[in-house]
Amino acid sequence: MSAASTADARARGGSPRAARGRPGPRDPRDARTPLDAMFRPSSIAVVGASAREGKAGHAMVQALRRFPGTLHLVNPRGGEVLGRTALPSLREASDVDLAVLVVPPDAVPGALEDARDAGVRAAVVCAGGFAESGPDGARLQERVVRVAREAGIRLLGPNTSGFMNPVDRTTANFMPAVADLAPGTVSVVAQSGGVNLALAFLLARAGVGLRLGVGLGNAVDVDFPELLDHLARDEATTAVGLHVEGVADGPALVAALRRTTARKPVVAFKVGRSDVAEFAQSHTGALTGSYAVTRAALQQAGAVVVDSLEEMVAALVALRTVRLPAGDRAGVGLLTGQAGPGLVVADALGARGIALPRLTDATQRRIAELLPPLTFQANPVDTGRPSPTFGDVLGAVVADPRVDVVGVYALDEPGALDPVAALGPAAGRVLFASGGPADALAERRAALGDVGVPVLAGPGDLATGLAAVVADARVRSVADAPPVAATRTVGRTLDEHDAKTLLESYGVRTPQRRVAADRAQAHAALAELGRDGAAVVVKVLDAAVLHKSDVGGVHVGVRDGAGLDRAIDAIDAIDAVAPATEASGAATRPARRYLLEELAAPGTELIVGAVRDAAFGPVVLLGPGGVAAELGGEPVLRLAPLSVARSEEMVRALPPAVLAGFRGAPPVDVPALAAVLRAVGQVVCEHADITELDLNPVRITADGPVVLDAVVVAAPRGDTCPT
Amino acid sequence: MSAASTADARARGGSPRAARGRPGPRDPRDARTPLDAMFRPSSIAVVGASAREGKAGHAMVQALRRFPGTLHLVNPRGGEVLGRTALPSLREASDVDLAVLVVPPDAVPGALEDARDAGVRAAVVCAGGFAESGPDGARLQERVVRVAREAGIRLLGPNTSGFMNPVDRTTANFMPAVADLAPGTVSVVAQSGGVNLALAFLLARAGVGLRLGVGLGNAVDVDFPELLDHLARDEATTAVGLHVEGVADGPALVAALRRTTARKPVVAFKVGRSDVAEFAQSHTGALTGSYAVTRAALQQAGAVVVDSLEEMVAALVALRTVRLPAGDRAGVGLLTGQAGPGLVVADALGARGIALPRLTDATQRRIAELLPPLTFQANPVDTGRPSPTFGDVLGAVVADPRVDVVGVYALDEPGALDPVAALGPAAGRVLFASGGPADALAERRAALGDVGVPVLAGPGDLATGLAAVVADARVRSVADAPPVAATRTVGRTLDEHDAKTLLESYGVRTPQRRVAADRAQAHAALAELGRDGAAVVVKVLDAAVLHKSDVGGVHVGVRDGAGLDRAIDAIDAIDAVAPATEASGAATRPARRYLLEELAAPGTELIVGAVRDAAFGPVVLLGPGGVAAELGGEPVLRLAPLSVARSEEMVRALPPAVLAGFRGAPPVDVPALAAVLRAVGQVVCEHADITELDLNPVRITADGPVVLDAVVVAAPRGDTCPT
Repeated sequence: MSAASTADARARGGSPRAARGRPGPRDPRDARTPLDAMFRPSSIAVVGASAREGKAGHAMVQALRRFPGTLHLVNPRGGEVLGRTALPSLREASDVDLAVLVVPPDAVPGALEDARDAGVRAAVVCAGGFAESGPDGARLQERVVRVAREAGIRLLGPNTSGFMNPVDRTTANFMPAVADLAPGTVSVVAQSGGVNLALAFLLARAGVGLRLGVGLGNAVDVDFPELLDHLARDEATTAVGLHVEGVADGPALVAALRRTTARKPVVAFKVGRSDVAEFAQSHTGALTGSYAVTRAALQQAGAVVVDSLEEMVAALVALRTVRLPAGDRAGVGLLTGQAGPGLVVADALGARGIALPRLTDATQRRIAELLPPLTFQANPVDTGRPSPTFGDVLGAVVADPRVDVVGVYALDEPGALDPVAALGPAAGRVLFASGGPADALAERRAALGDVGVPVLAGPGDLATGLAAVVADARVRSVADAPPVAATRTVGRTLDEHDAKTLLESYGVRTPQRRVAADRAQAHAALAELGRDGAAVVVKVLDAAVLHKSDVGGVHVGVRDGAGLDRAIDAIDAIDAVAPATEASGAATRPARRYLLEELAAPGTELIVGAVRDAAFGPVVLLGPGGVAAELGGEPVLRLAPLSVARSEEMVRALPPAVLAGFRGAPPVDVPALAAVLRAVGQVVCEHADITELDLNPVRITADGPVVLDAVVVAAPRGDTCPT
Repeated sequence: MSAASTADARARGGSPRAARGRPGPRDPRDARTPLDAMFRPSSIAVVGASAREGKAGHAMVQALRRFPGTLHLVNPRGGEVLGRTALPSLREASDVDLAVLVVPPDAVPGALEDARDAGVRAAVVCAGGFAESGPDGARLQERVVRVAREAGIRLLGPNTSGFMNPVDRTTANFMPAVADLAPGTVSVVAQSGGVNLALAFLLARAGVGLRLGVGLGNAVDVDFPELLDHLARDEATTAVGLHVEGVADGPALVAALRRTTARKPVVAFKVGRSDVAEFAQSHTGALTGSYAVTRAALQQAGAVVVDSLEEMVAALVALRTVRLPAGDRAGVGLLTGQAGPGLVVADALGARGIALPRLTDATQRRIAELLPPLTFQANPVDTGRPSPTFGDVLGAVVADPRVDVVGVYALDEPGALDPVAALGPAAGRVLFASGGPADALAERRAALGDVGVPVLAGPGDLATGLAAVVADARVRSVADAPPVAATRTVGRTLDEHDAKTLLESYGVRTPQRRVAADRAQAHAALAELGRDGAAVVVKVLDAAVLHKSDVGGVHVGVRDGAGLDRAIDAIDAIDAVAPATEASGAATRPARRYLLEELAAPGTELIVGAVRDAAFGPVVLLGPGGVAAELGGEPVLRLAPLSVARSEEMVRALPPAVLAGFRGAPPVDVPALAAVLRAVGQVVCEHADITELDLNPVRITADGPVVLDAVVVAAPRGDTCPT
């Protein structure tokens, strides 16, 4: 807590070199990183600087008006720009760390060559018209990347508005107002330059300054993972906001996020809840990918995932100064001077699955000594209009062993409450929200900020902030398994029998079964499996038949020879009913085979599966089966391989009604189902050519989970999947 | 559109009498309403005025410091309060319209008697400690109500912070800062005084002034319906925000809301998504009631229902100046100067079920003439950094026949865009959001407000505002049926046969069935129904057996005598397995009876039902059946009786997968299922003693919906249900 407020104070003062007005020897804490030439340059050249107002090359110079280092302006026509003489070429500048290119796309490769010749170490490319605009742009982009790489120039963009580093007064962005952004300790990495700006101003509106805000644009060089590592090491950053449209390299992002979230909170917003792929691709050229997988991956890597930029801001306001130790159920206390807004906060938390623990009897007794008996005191604690005991009541709530973080709501009533005196002692474990005039709130915010208490603008933002603090603790509470190398292949798509045999070798339970190559073998199998008069299931055994039930390929409850013959007749007729040509290109069909299985005990049916996501690699999924799945019941997704803790957390994410066993079904055996999930994750990770694995259904019997059907789909022979 | 901006301008100027500094003859537009003595008094007395800072009776006097009429202060000790001489008793004041009582709860009845003697016409009671605090408080509250009623004094509260009418500088609230609230055209009715204040300041933060903000508190007299009617008539109000914890009289609220939403938009927020009932009751004494029913009722009455106070503010910012004609699918256009934030807006709209229509070819051609070919132009329209053509592009989008309202996002870049020139011509059909420094945005907001264009603070708020405009048009697009008087009773809980017979008389289809009083009748019925070898269903027929399937009371697929005997044996054994004592208090059981039914054709199974809500009366529900329902699939709820349009809208609210028919099931016949819903609504409305009606399942066959099981539950004999 004090680390954060110290960082805040440092940010407000600016770094030592900024304070001196020009670059100098750096603070020894801030070791140079590969991106320092970009974000903390000693000198900058604006290429395309323009004297004409309204042009981006004019706005960029305005934006850099507070830059304390050397600023060169370059314009082929020379002349004056905003009172400075422009050089006709970048080659005439020397000792330039960063070149900001505000030139048309076609001019970028040449400008980069000039930059190389001038010894420039980093460049921001603002122009659009590259890969996002079509094949011509993509070729131009390749050329830009080649030139930059050969020249050893680090590149931000193209197709970005730039970046802002208010702490070092280095605000290279074509929106002039960024020069006045307040320094702070929150950093932002946005895929879009426009969103980077939008977030910076939303943060400013919430009273939060910026350490570093970067718009990645097409991200041909500087990208999410490197920036995250940069910010993880940056001591001046206490929290990071991430805006993600699409992810090029999932595992690299996840690894960098893990390193970052181990040190400081990251709040992530992923675009793509709805279908916006077409527009997204026209924008930064990024495919939005699977929204659900990306969201799951971000959370698994320790990020707090939010649903809007506004939520991100409230989460960052909270997390930049308040972070709890890792833990899967941090307790929230709520103290309110006005019951109505307190109720709104409690309700919003409840809707996010955060219940307020009842305070211990000891705490309640203590509070009863401090407050009149008219109000609710068990949590939420309703103080009524704040009295001088408010701080003591807060102290009692903070001290309660069931409480890890406390939200406080009180209207800004001068005379009724001195927030700094009341809340200061609980700094690091308390968030404050208030209602009142803007100027009064700004004063409170500054005063409370100095003692490390974040201030939110209203009940909804307070709930969002509290939920973020709880989520940040929770997402770090589960350790993941180390990566697994894919050393095997399956070679072909497996039929049910082979798929189940593979799963059995990983410890997964299946019903007893017999494969029959003809009618006689089927009858022999029935005699064996149906020994004690038990009914069996008879199924077609053919990897090419994908929807067995739909085409009459599954016959439940066969008890005698006549029934078996009817089942076999139906299975033999399948070709005529629905030629199974979808999955295989085989010209000749092998002879029909049959699978006979014992009937499993009753129970809830779930779907377990795995896919290989194009961006993130192997993903395991778990969800309700049957009709519930058809109606859009959301599956639980996690990146594989799964640790024991992760697999059990995954099972517990099922709806409570499923976990408990509804309609008389047995409850879910969490460790046993978690073991099935781990096995599935292991299978898909170890086999390079498995694209998909479906266990549908897995039945939760009183004796544990049993896989009733399974398919393993392989990539065409010879291919392995990207990981 | 111009009406709203005129109202805004009027609000900014204050009403004529406020402008003159003291009460005088009123604007003829503003006819007196019963609540004018409360909210537009000519003179006010503050009873309990205190010289001590920090006391509510001091804060109240500060809050009224700008009141232009006569202000009396009353304190039994006399003396001076804030430079004014206090009267020792209210009886010494004359011509007082409004008494604001800032005295302890016990002193309220006496103060009201004094007020009566002084001819006071309205009173605000701030103190808590009434019904919300327990039985003693409830008795005190009854006394207060009695005194006020006998005295003919209208009462706001008790247990409220008061109200604010900044337009008339009448801000009777114990938070002094309310005196500086800006006047505007948005009014707020909050169940909680604290939420009323929170909303007023959140609105101010969004740059929106207040016409009237009222905290109802315990609402013993002035309540939701009367206030809504007051605001419906108030020409200075262009939009209303409603904060609801619990509803005392549902039909009155619905009727008043209908009258109000016919004239101006209402945005409502209902507390109680999660279980906060215990805390809520300690607060204003209101039961939170059914969240889902209240929400459905508010929407059906024409309100835009939101999930947070922050959303309410964004919705009000939009709706106070932009309202579309009623229509069930208003088209949204989106124009953005920065693709990233535009994508965030489009995604947030999509997540709310609002897809952006593709612009017509003609519009796209026109836009292609105005913009370089690099950007996305089909909707969203990405202009790239705004150029001088921005206004023309907006004009083209607004003119598109598929577009009813347009959202515009552009960073505040001076020189790049003059928002007033570009957006002004589209006023009334355009919302604007921007990112930039606070002072620049405030300037823009004022300038755009003058021409009738609402300004939102960022991408999320823009999406919320657009969604609110679309929802406001949609909720008014369906006309409801007029109320139905309950003229009949069923007299007792009906068994399946009687329930189905009742439903048939309302035109609902059921399978062919026979009732059998004994085994012989059952065999005769089988011979008849199973004539052509068809299988039948055999069920126990007993209103006291509630979960027939669970106790072995339902046997599907009986084809022959032996099967029928087995089924009857099982049914006869039910008592032993699970004594059916839950539903009836009968000491002796009637002889067991059996119901034989033809099998229905296959299809999706749904649940149709009705309940009589304690607050809102008859409600019809429709939802997926089976496992999906168990897993918490939300049913669609609507107040009965249902019009044809309402019942069809209700069916169309089912998940698309259900409507289309999944897993080969036939699609839902919308008019036919809607007719079932109307029948169910009619049954429950016409029968005063029906508490619940369950049609579970209703199967959607290729020939239309068939009710496979039904129960009608009646209140104990002699009772009728409250309506």
